[in-house]
Amino acid sequence: MAVGQCDFPTMHPVKGIKLGTCNAGIKQNVRDDVLVIEMAETGSCAAVFTQNAFCAAPVLIAREHLAQEPRWLLINSGNANAGTGKQGLQDAFASCAALAGEVDGIAQQVLPFSTGVIGEPLPVAKLTAALPAAVANLHEDHWDRAARAIMTTDTFAKGASTVIDIAGRPVTITGISKGAGMIQPNMATMLGFIATDANIEQDLLQTCLSRAAELSFNRITVDGDTSTNDACVLLASGRGDAPEITADSPEYAVFAAAVTRVCKRLAELIVRDGEGATKLIRIVVEQALDNAEATRVAKTIAHSPLVKTAFFASDPNWGRILAAVGRAGLTDMALDKVEIYLGTVCIVENGARSPAYTEQDGQRVMDQAEITVTVRLGRGNAHEEVLTCDFSYDYVRINAEYRT
Amino acid sequence: MAVGQCDFPTMHPVKGIKLGTCNAGIKQNVRDDVLVIEMAETGSCAAVFTQNAFCAAPVLIAREHLAQEPRWLLINSGNANAGTGKQGLQDAFASCAALAGEVDGIAQQVLPFSTGVIGEPLPVAKLTAALPAAVANLHEDHWDRAARAIMTTDTFAKGASTVIDIAGRPVTITGISKGAGMIQPNMATMLGFIATDANIEQDLLQTCLSRAAELSFNRITVDGDTSTNDACVLLASGRGDAPEITADSPEYAVFAAAVTRVCKRLAELIVRDGEGATKLIRIVVEQALDNAEATRVAKTIAHSPLVKTAFFASDPNWGRILAAVGRAGLTDMALDKVEIYLGTVCIVENGARSPAYTEQDGQRVMDQAEITVTVRLGRGNAHEEVLTCDFSYDYVRINAEYRT
Repeated sequence: MAVGQCDFPTMHPVKGIKLGTCNAGIKQNVRDDVLVIEMAETGSCAAVFTQNAFCAAPVLIAREHLAQEPRWLLINSGNANAGTGKQGLQDAFASCAALAGEVDGIAQQVLPFSTGVIGEPLPVAKLTAALPAAVANLHEDHWDRAARAIMTTDTFAKGASTVIDIAGRPVTITGISKGAGMIQPNMATMLGFIATDANIEQDLLQTCLSRAAELSFNRITVDGDTSTNDACVLLASGRGDAPEITADSPEYAVFAAAVTRVCKRLAELIVRDGEGATKLIRIVVEQALDNAEATRVAKTIAHSPLVKTAFFASDPNWGRILAAVGRAGLTDMALDKVEIYLGTVCIVENGARSPAYTEQDGQRVMDQAEITVTVRLGRGNAHEEVLTCDFSYDYVRINAEYRT
Repeated sequence: MAVGQCDFPTMHPVKGIKLGTCNAGIKQNVRDDVLVIEMAETGSCAAVFTQNAFCAAPVLIAREHLAQEPRWLLINSGNANAGTGKQGLQDAFASCAALAGEVDGIAQQVLPFSTGVIGEPLPVAKLTAALPAAVANLHEDHWDRAARAIMTTDTFAKGASTVIDIAGRPVTITGISKGAGMIQPNMATMLGFIATDANIEQDLLQTCLSRAAELSFNRITVDGDTSTNDACVLLASGRGDAPEITADSPEYAVFAAAVTRVCKRLAELIVRDGEGATKLIRIVVEQALDNAEATRVAKTIAHSPLVKTAFFASDPNWGRILAAVGRAGLTDMALDKVEIYLGTVCIVENGARSPAYTEQDGQRVMDQAEITVTVRLGRGNAHEEVLTCDFSYDYVRINAEYRT
């Protein structure tokens, strides 16, 4: 169940980027489960990957191939090819080689991505048999099909698209993402694929993506579990009319801000589709000593099952928020300097419930589908923001039934 | 719903320790909600408290009074007196003073403890009005009433009791605990009160309790939330017949082991009563570099909502366990050295599913109510164990409805 407005937007095609999908039967249903993305040879490619120590076979291969000026992405849903040992690595590479054969490229120019159940062998034969169909329908206009092909427990397709002005010329940034559970990305989301027709050199593109991912995908959590397969790719085809974006040009800031906006929207859509989610909760921590402690407090609140179930029940049980702040591990915390707000309603000040607070005021905020919790620590000037969702019966149901 | 055998045991009375309860109407029901424990003046007292930075008013007062040779414990359930600011401190002290007046002691010899809803003012008038009744029924045989009076969301009373032999004389150790949610104790459980008639000096008693708590209450988790009110007390009345236990005597090891056993049982009972729990899960991490990393891996698995919902569903979804190990933040993890067992069934070896593993074998273990997960890291010789429970619909229900 999506929280709020999540319609699939108008996706501006990106010159030099084509997408093709097909149904390889990996998920045993009629939906497409394979996506191929092809970039023109003028392009550059940046990527960020999961920090899980047990990253999946395709992540290991994709990391290696990233240095080989990749031009193709091969994504399958339904099987994560994780916890699959040496066979998993061979399977991921064989898939790349099969696609290379179809498109007349080399295997090292293909980045593989997989998402789905962990620990099952990748059905390579099914996957490679389906590749000709995916390649045959490569097209600049297939972003909507692409977004649907990478879904697993997602309830809706996720996209974001914008056109900005660089030196009087339009530059397009269009992307898709997937994910709903096992979401506490660390350097990357579950899966995100973003493309632009900008002309930008690889190193700078990587800097831009790393920063954007830090501010977007790394600031969301559904259940605190970091996936073995998280990855996010930014392709720049260089086929637009705008001049090259360089590090010291004023255009870089404009471009980077737009990429960050697209990433933030794609990340937010993942939380809005959080497994069982009925509410979107924005945790803002202000007046922290530094950004690390602000993030730490925000994530401790965002991960607390007690806080999340209270939000599900629309119960303004602020004591649970206070307890979470208190266990975040900050040294020399002064409780009497902490303020907590539900929306604009002050609930805690001077170490206790605000004298002006009424349960009715708190309830009015809790009844909303999108809620901002603001915690002021009274220690400094740093602030951070984390997005999460509530914890419902449906979270338990979805994850109890996942493999059945 | 309790997991396994949780009957209230025969409680051996402790010479020099009396317990009295009464119904002060704090919880608006007919159950006793106040407990007074009185120790003979020959005794000594040790305690450990929550590490939550926002510890409750009674914890602050109890920490202060601990140095004043306390002889009385005053415990109420139904209200945590946490997040209550200066008024909370005044209320906690006033309660101590009121009890001191009843028993002809001084307020500083009373340690106060509260458990229940956070953020509501403590109803001091109700509490003090009920004290004469609690004092009037002080008796060595009231351990069962005491265990019931401190319950909140607990579904059963929790006790453990043993008699050991010290130099040919019996020494009794008897204790009670409470707790079912907001459980990831840090240096103490939710609430635990243990007494012995041993003759032992305060410093050594404190060493004994701190170590026992570390091995018991600090190795359990229900939901990863550390309470503002956690505390555990060990009273030694010195009224038994056995000679004094000193640090370098062989009897100390025997005594300390027995105290640890009682604490472990009291801690295990809390997990067996974990909110919504249907399964008891023992996470054993072996072959770690040191105890800290063993505990870290065990707690990462124990806190994963995805792992916990899979256990609820009896689904041998070992990929979720593997993903949790991988995100525990250990450096230089070698996936191919990791082995994971469900019960005695090997599911992961050499970085992938064990060739001998069958889903049927895994299912047979998962269908049991008590399950041991063993993770061998292949890095060293340290091992640790953490107890937790599964994550069910009822966890969500209990915590969504807590204040209604």
